Amino acid sequence: MPNSITAYDTIAAISTPPGEGGISIVRLSGDQALPVAQRVFKGRNLAKVASHTINYGHIIDPSDGSVVDEVMVSVMRAPKTYTREDVIEINCHGGIVDTNRILQLLLSHGARMAEPGEFTKRAFLNGRIDLTQAESVMDLIRAKTDKAMQVAVDQLDGNLSHLIKTMRQEIFSVLGQEEVNIDYPEYEMDEVTGQMMLEKATAVRDHVAQLLATANQGKILREGLATAIIGRPNVGKSSLLNYLLHEDKAIVTDVAGTTRDTLEEYVNVRGVPLKLVDTAGIHHTTDKVEKIGVARSQKALGQADLVLLVLDASAPLQSDDRELLKATQAKKRIILLNKTDLPAAITPENLAALVPDETLIIPVSVLQASGLDELEAAIAHLFFGEGIENSQSSVLVTNARQYGLLAQAKTALDDVVTALKNDVPLDLVQIDMTTAWEKLGEVIGQNAPDELITQLFSQFCLGK
Amino acid sequence: MPNSITAYDTIAAISTPPGEGGISIVRLSGDQALPVAQRVFKGRNLAKVASHTINYGHIIDPSDGSVVDEVMVSVMRAPKTYTREDVIEINCHGGIVDTNRILQLLLSHGARMAEPGEFTKRAFLNGRIDLTQAESVMDLIRAKTDKAMQVAVDQLDGNLSHLIKTMRQEIFSVLGQEEVNIDYPEYEMDEVTGQMMLEKATAVRDHVAQLLATANQGKILREGLATAIIGRPNVGKSSLLNYLLHEDKAIVTDVAGTTRDTLEEYVNVRGVPLKLVDTAGIHHTTDKVEKIGVARSQKALGQADLVLLVLDASAPLQSDDRELLKATQAKKRIILLNKTDLPAAITPENLAALVPDETLIIPVSVLQASGLDELEAAIAHLFFGEGIENSQSSVLVTNARQYGLLAQAKTALDDVVTALKNDVPLDLVQIDMTTAWEKLGEVIGQNAPDELITQLFSQFCLGK
Repeated sequence: MPNSITAYDTIAAISTPPGEGGISIVRLSGDQALPVAQRVFKGRNLAKVASHTINYGHIIDPSDGSVVDEVMVSVMRAPKTYTREDVIEINCHGGIVDTNRILQLLLSHGARMAEPGEFTKRAFLNGRIDLTQAESVMDLIRAKTDKAMQVAVDQLDGNLSHLIKTMRQEIFSVLGQEEVNIDYPEYEMDEVTGQMMLEKATAVRDHVAQLLATANQGKILREGLATAIIGRPNVGKSSLLNYLLHEDKAIVTDVAGTTRDTLEEYVNVRGVPLKLVDTAGIHHTTDKVEKIGVARSQKALGQADLVLLVLDASAPLQSDDRELLKATQAKKRIILLNKTDLPAAITPENLAALVPDETLIIPVSVLQASGLDELEAAIAHLFFGEGIENSQSSVLVTNARQYGLLAQAKTALDDVVTALKNDVPLDLVQIDMTTAWEKLGEVIGQNAPDELITQLFSQFCLGK
Repeated sequence: MPNSITAYDTIAAISTPPGEGGISIVRLSGDQALPVAQRVFKGRNLAKVASHTINYGHIIDPSDGSVVDEVMVSVMRAPKTYTREDVIEINCHGGIVDTNRILQLLLSHGARMAEPGEFTKRAFLNGRIDLTQAESVMDLIRAKTDKAMQVAVDQLDGNLSHLIKTMRQEIFSVLGQEEVNIDYPEYEMDEVTGQMMLEKATAVRDHVAQLLATANQGKILREGLATAIIGRPNVGKSSLLNYLLHEDKAIVTDVAGTTRDTLEEYVNVRGVPLKLVDTAGIHHTTDKVEKIGVARSQKALGQADLVLLVLDASAPLQSDDRELLKATQAKKRIILLNKTDLPAAITPENLAALVPDETLIIPVSVLQASGLDELEAAIAHLFFGEGIENSQSSVLVTNARQYGLLAQAKTALDDVVTALKNDVPLDLVQIDMTTAWEKLGEVIGQNAPDELITQLFSQFCLGK
């Protein structure tokens, strides 16, 4: 990770979400950002304005002098910028044609189209942020709930980096000690050093293990929990879906770069983002007669991390219900005994006798909105336990890259601990200790290979 | 239209398009904009920074001190701002949850949620822009082609306003003259004044008539030209659609506030935005056998301003073709004789004998991309003639409100001209002359009633 500024070419992109809005921003970064902007800007001389100022003017097409838009141009000079390079942000009236036209003008006057994530990549390459912070930028943008956002903001703030750096420091201190021993074998401090190394390696390993244990929560917060609402027709799936979607919980997002067909629906249940599976099957039926049946339910089941199985408590169990009970046995599931407002044909006790002991059964009446608080609490508890929901700040492992490297570091530290307990010579143990130190370094982007960097930032959105 | 600043309450809204992007902006306007922002901002004291500066810091939830986002806060003090009030723009990492959270914090610390268009409404109420300029802001955001954008930018720049003001000045000068005559009847200058008034009224009326004549172009540029591609199955509709959509012409936009079902497709044909009607019917068929048939074509016909009727030149006319030829008779249409790459069964001459003289018939081969330039030229010519496409700047009437008022002004001026020719006394003529002056004033928003203002800005997008 270079810590000095290298001169890269000047890049440009639209940094606001695509679409019609009040304001759009076209962003430039690089040592030619100011002159490139000046070529299409009629207003003050940008080379002479102070840094971090906003300047009124017009974007002009130099080929014919026509006015393209009335704009505010923000001038931010290196190094106190997002990329640590000179940055220009052109705030324009937020139309699609308008904003694209400004971008095209910049591209034909010296800028290159930025790749996805390239602004953030430069912030990393220029040493302003490390790799976990860069990753958190995208987590923040994609956050589906407040909790997910909080984890991303904490990571952006460097909480995970700080933890990793502290652990590396611990390892480094004993590695340094070991170097002393090797250089001055006459001191014969091996025993003392071995004991110290065992203590440090155990402590760091336990810390890494704790971090690894957060990965499932991190993944759920980041990507959402694929949730299927299933049940035979007319048990109340559609009403449950509507309840979830209408309580100010719905977050409908477009997946960047794809068409309307892949629209995703999320609901926020106490900080847990549920990504609803096959809601189209439920949406397209009427409330009265839900056409989504057992076959479709079983298909939805395949994609789900959590199953909400809805049964009708006012009618005896039918063969379809039994089939779905069986099909969901291996899944994380919550069984909802719906229609408790009607005379009961099935009680929770009846049902409990048919399913494994630990199965969660919640009597609800979606119609009367009773029991739904219990459902929400159960979902939150199932995935986060008591802890996370209330904790102020939380350091979580949020992606597979971080998880993989931490797991490798833990393996190396396990080996260190085992070796030390078996009196393996310290200079051999040192090899594993060094591996752990390196793997932790890779988490924050030390010596990260180019392909990794390229691949990682390519998942970003354009303009970030 | 008040020209002095009235103190309004402080409003807030997300000003960037909804969705995930690199940057989102939450905007505040009003005399409490700085203190409201300061309550949730950790960084510099915004009250002490210079105007038009960008300030790094964090948004904090004051209730628990948690960091919500890392942001850049732009401080712009009245009066040199979009609204002429103090304006704060918070540039944050562009996530949905993140951005909403910042907005919610501002709303719970002294700001009110802005109504759609309220920032621009304040720019109008505070006298920074007139009503035609305010209207052009939304036209600019919604512009579908460069040409539409250019017209909006010109109007934003005040070109239409300037024209209207000049015409009002002309009228005012003779009204002033008339006042002199009424006050000093002994001078008996009636004849001279009458002649002068006739000249001015005629000149202004002709100018207004020219403006009115642009309204159709203005409407098309603004809203797009509803275009149906019709024809019996397998004549090449789908290929034509693909040609139009793939030549970097497609502009697919989401209609604000609606669901995916109302996605609209536009293509840009030499500056004419064609809004394609019932493309789903064509999309959902395969190229080989287009299932969209005569019945569906006739439905699409109902919504179209322009019809592209595709016939297969390699096969004799069928009864379906004849039916469609008849059904489109009253429409603006272009008949495409497709498949000229195959041996001809119908020639343009054959066909010409069957349709009215002025009918446009263009032989094309969509497969070989021949004749399509002629099609594009024909569309541009049909709607804009020779003039507009090449003109640098163009003042067009772009909406129904402007059109209605100009038509009333023209009627009043017609009455003036007729009355003067019939020697009606000048003090009676003066009434119509005053009406014309007032109606022109209303175009730019002089004495615009509150309901009109409210209704007009409510069509804007949020955050503008």
